[in-house]
Amino acid sequence: MSNKALQNNAHKPWPHNAWYQAAWAHEVQDGPLARTLLNEPVVLFRDRDGNAHALEDRCCHRATPLHLGDVVDEGLQCGYHGLIFDGSGKCVVIPGQESIPPQARVRSYPLVEKQEILWVWMGDADAADENLIIDFPFLDDHENHPHLHDVMTIKCNHMLVVENLMDLTHIPYIHGKTIGGGNRLGQVNATMDVTKKDSGVHYIRWMEDIVPPPTYKLAAGWDDDVKVDRWQEFEYVAPATVLQWSGALEHGRGAKEDRDQKGGFSSHVWHTATPETETSCLYFWSATNSYKPDDQEATKLLHREVSNTFDEDVAFLENQQACLSANPDQVLIDIKHDVARKPARTVLERMIHAELEETAVAAE
Amino acid sequence: MSNKALQNNAHKPWPHNAWYQAAWAHEVQDGPLARTLLNEPVVLFRDRDGNAHALEDRCCHRATPLHLGDVVDEGLQCGYHGLIFDGSGKCVVIPGQESIPPQARVRSYPLVEKQEILWVWMGDADAADENLIIDFPFLDDHENHPHLHDVMTIKCNHMLVVENLMDLTHIPYIHGKTIGGGNRLGQVNATMDVTKKDSGVHYIRWMEDIVPPPTYKLAAGWDDDVKVDRWQEFEYVAPATVLQWSGALEHGRGAKEDRDQKGGFSSHVWHTATPETETSCLYFWSATNSYKPDDQEATKLLHREVSNTFDEDVAFLENQQACLSANPDQVLIDIKHDVARKPARTVLERMIHAELEETAVAAE
Amino acid sequence: MSNKALQNNAHKPWPHNAWYQAAWAHEVQDGPLARTLLNEPVVLFRDRDGNAHALEDRCCHRATPLHLGDVVDEGLQCGYHGLIFDGSGKCVVIPGQESIPPQARVRSYPLVEKQEILWVWMGDADAADENLIIDFPFLDDHENHPHLHDVMTIKCNHMLVVENLMDLTHIPYIHGKTIGGGNRLGQVNATMDVTKKDSGVHYIRWMEDIVPPPTYKLAAGWDDDVKVDRWQEFEYVAPATVLQWSGALEHGRGAKEDRDQKGGFSSHVWHTATPETETSCLYFWSATNSYKPDDQEATKLLHREVSNTFDEDVAFLENQQACLSANPDQVLIDIKHDVARKPARTVLERMIHAELEETAVAAE
Repeated sequence: MSNKALQNNAHKPWPHNAWYQAAWAHEVQDGPLARTLLNEPVVLFRDRDGNAHALEDRCCHRATPLHLGDVVDEGLQCGYHGLIFDGSGKCVVIPGQESIPPQARVRSYPLVEKQEILWVWMGDADAADENLIIDFPFLDDHENHPHLHDVMTIKCNHMLVVENLMDLTHIPYIHGKTIGGGNRLGQVNATMDVTKKDSGVHYIRWMEDIVPPPTYKLAAGWDDDVKVDRWQEFEYVAPATVLQWSGALEHGRGAKEDRDQKGGFSSHVWHTATPETETSCLYFWSATNSYKPDDQEATKLLHREVSNTFDEDVAFLENQQACLSANPDQVLIDIKHDVARKPARTVLERMIHAELEETAVAAE
Repeated sequence: MSNKALQNNAHKPWPHNAWYQAAWAHEVQDGPLARTLLNEPVVLFRDRDGNAHALEDRCCHRATPLHLGDVVDEGLQCGYHGLIFDGSGKCVVIPGQESIPPQARVRSYPLVEKQEILWVWMGDADAADENLIIDFPFLDDHENHPHLHDVMTIKCNHMLVVENLMDLTHIPYIHGKTIGGGNRLGQVNATMDVTKKDSGVHYIRWMEDIVPPPTYKLAAGWDDDVKVDRWQEFEYVAPATVLQWSGALEHGRGAKEDRDQKGGFSSHVWHTATPETETSCLYFWSATNSYKPDDQEATKLLHREVSNTFDEDVAFLENQQACLSANPDQVLIDIKHDVARKPARTVLERMIHAELEETAVAAE
Repeated sequence: MSNKALQNNAHKPWPHNAWYQAAWAHEVQDGPLARTLLNEPVVLFRDRDGNAHALEDRCCHRATPLHLGDVVDEGLQCGYHGLIFDGSGKCVVIPGQESIPPQARVRSYPLVEKQEILWVWMGDADAADENLIIDFPFLDDHENHPHLHDVMTIKCNHMLVVENLMDLTHIPYIHGKTIGGGNRLGQVNATMDVTKKDSGVHYIRWMEDIVPPPTYKLAAGWDDDVKVDRWQEFEYVAPATVLQWSGALEHGRGAKEDRDQKGGFSSHVWHTATPETETSCLYFWSATNSYKPDDQEATKLLHREVSNTFDEDVAFLENQQACLSANPDQVLIDIKHDVARKPARTVLERMIHAELEETAVAAE
């Protein structure tokens, strides 16, 4: 290992050799879609066979973005002078010119479509292993777990989104009108079981015999006097994803023994925050209606409630980023409730460090 | 004195050991107020006993701004995870955690409420002496000198506002429709008596037997043929305040001997420009209706006229700052009318230099 | 020649010793006009004798922009404290002050009004030779070649506008609805005759027996089945101008032998892109109605069509600049159709290099 190489790359804000969500499958249809991913301009497009591709969003001729062009039979056509690139990034047509030089190409990125997500690999293409892609079967199970797919841009480092989800004691403060209403200290003082893993951090919180928050009441149709046993199970999977299963059953129904039973409230939530830059990210999410799967209105209602909840987070996350950017050297303190947040950050840093070491070894 | 320390701090845009207006008292009521002061994020709040406080606007836990939170019984509560800070900046509550580490605190700044102004001291707290705060009794004398308190943000260095007020020959050019209308050269050629002081610069200008400007005519109700003796008395008090007494009496009434007599026009004006950054400031002002104190409409009218006048200045000040920022090394020339402006700048620079010397001595 | 001086000035984005269009003559009437030209703030004004002048847009007293002032009998008066500057940049009035120091002046730039253009010379004034100004007699021949003068700001380097005009194979891609509609490959494969010149690059393209594009059809009133012989003659004149003559006659009318004959479509187009900064420019243009000079509606229609066409270019040019700025070291490839674009860039670079050499020699 070369310490010099490590030092030279000392500031590496994220792992490159990892799968990141580039888009929801439905976002890329007939035309190209522009995205900034890990500081690079990327254009996504679906060829005439329906296969999605990710290319550098910059023509190799005059540096115009390819997303200003159109999908044609041969691939993606630059809108300026008509050059066409196939899914591998190779230029296959230069209008009016017979011979195409081999250097006429743009970078392509490995792209995999799985469970209605387009996953991109921004690092070393040879290391891109599809088996590393997260499996979350709820994503394409619209029959038993109906849900909508959504995405929003947040002007903060992607880890602030992850860390937000790793300390749920923020819920009674930020989300008093939605998922955090009800008994404030009851939520703060939930039991908390944390398990550190190689790939991330898992935790589960239980609040027994507690009043349900407004969103849960609305979803389950509970009366005012109903008390519930409520759980929040979260797993951070580095570098950028958090898997969630939250729910509640009426107290006494035995939720701790069997969370899968019918009735009450239950939702499997997908969160992934793909870095655009060091201070902005794309937050992809979906939340299943796993409690009334036949009720389309319930699905829409839950989506709206979760969407409102995330809007409440955005003001905090963006202001937090602004504070951190203005004063990056401020010393912060940890509290008791950082018990899952801190190891999550450690896993990410370990992943970045390992990648720096690999680069250093390769450079020796 | 260490020249090295002086050099290291060579660029210090303002004194830190001084009182600056942070807000008008009425601006801080039930909730927190965010302000950028001398490049630092500050949150002002009033505790349940009615005492106002100034804290660093950044939680020591996760760096979210405290102004997104709420005032509660124990102090100011962060809106993210519920930590509460008292007026001294000490964290007094961490929800769900019994022991609070002593390093759980944010910086607090000395704050004094006097004559309806909240004064803040951004430098060394031990040096904060309340006796240094400017006394301007008109500020809270709404019976004899009714007025409104106002504030505006101007995108320029705070000294450009001060210097604007130190050379009134700009009035007939910028303010022809309000306070500068009438005899242009008569105003330019007013007598000008300047007195340099340790704390700033004082001057008084007289224009005798001159047509009054539109604002004065409107206020006093003078006919078109009335001529007046008009005065402008200004005092810069470093680092950021200008005290003004302007007025006019009908020519022959003996204004020079007794400016306090009834009739005519008379206004005591408060100006202070607190730096937000090196290129923006908060301009706090009020202008008393000291000529028709029982006439509420007259008070409102004067406020509106002065407000319009300052709006006329803003375009010049912001464009001046843009020019200076774009070409900071341009050599400028002084003219005859800079006789008060130049020593004002000198007083500020002397104050900055003295503070650098103190720091240098302390560091030895 | 001093290599050191060359290196020190290695990054020089444009020649300074050259005439650039500062404005259309009609843009400068009673009041001053602010322009940023070659990174410098310039104010244009017309004195009471009708002569136009270009001054540094920054008063030498307090650095306020002179364009906030007014034209008066003696020259341009600063709106802040009333200093007046004549067309040579000399301060001729300081209100209330008898003696004017010789250093009280702002920079003036040579300015020439010719053929309804105000030309400015931003470099060494001694080298400003009026004979170097481009002659384009159509500019002020409103009787035989009626047209309107227009200007737009584009957020790109001025050479991206020039290069856009040096490769017309972009027309069928970007401008399919206006001048590029019809037979796409017929346009790409037009004949192309390029002549390199000391002052720039000339080329002419012919498309024979081709369907006319929508704009031409609209202008000439051709039926759907009409085929035409179409030409595009362009000349880049360094550093910033492109002269164009485009047109079409019905196939068989002998356009190649006599392009001046009546009927059909014909337009002489003026393009010049004056740098504001390295990433923005002022694009001045006009397009003559040389086919129906007595038809005012035709003149307006053509102007609107060309204006729409240029709007189509703007999105590409600004995105291209953003790509280049984000990744300035990207290696680009040339294609066959860069046959005029590449030598145009070479002429500009030769001009910049020659100016650097002169500076180096002068400095020895």
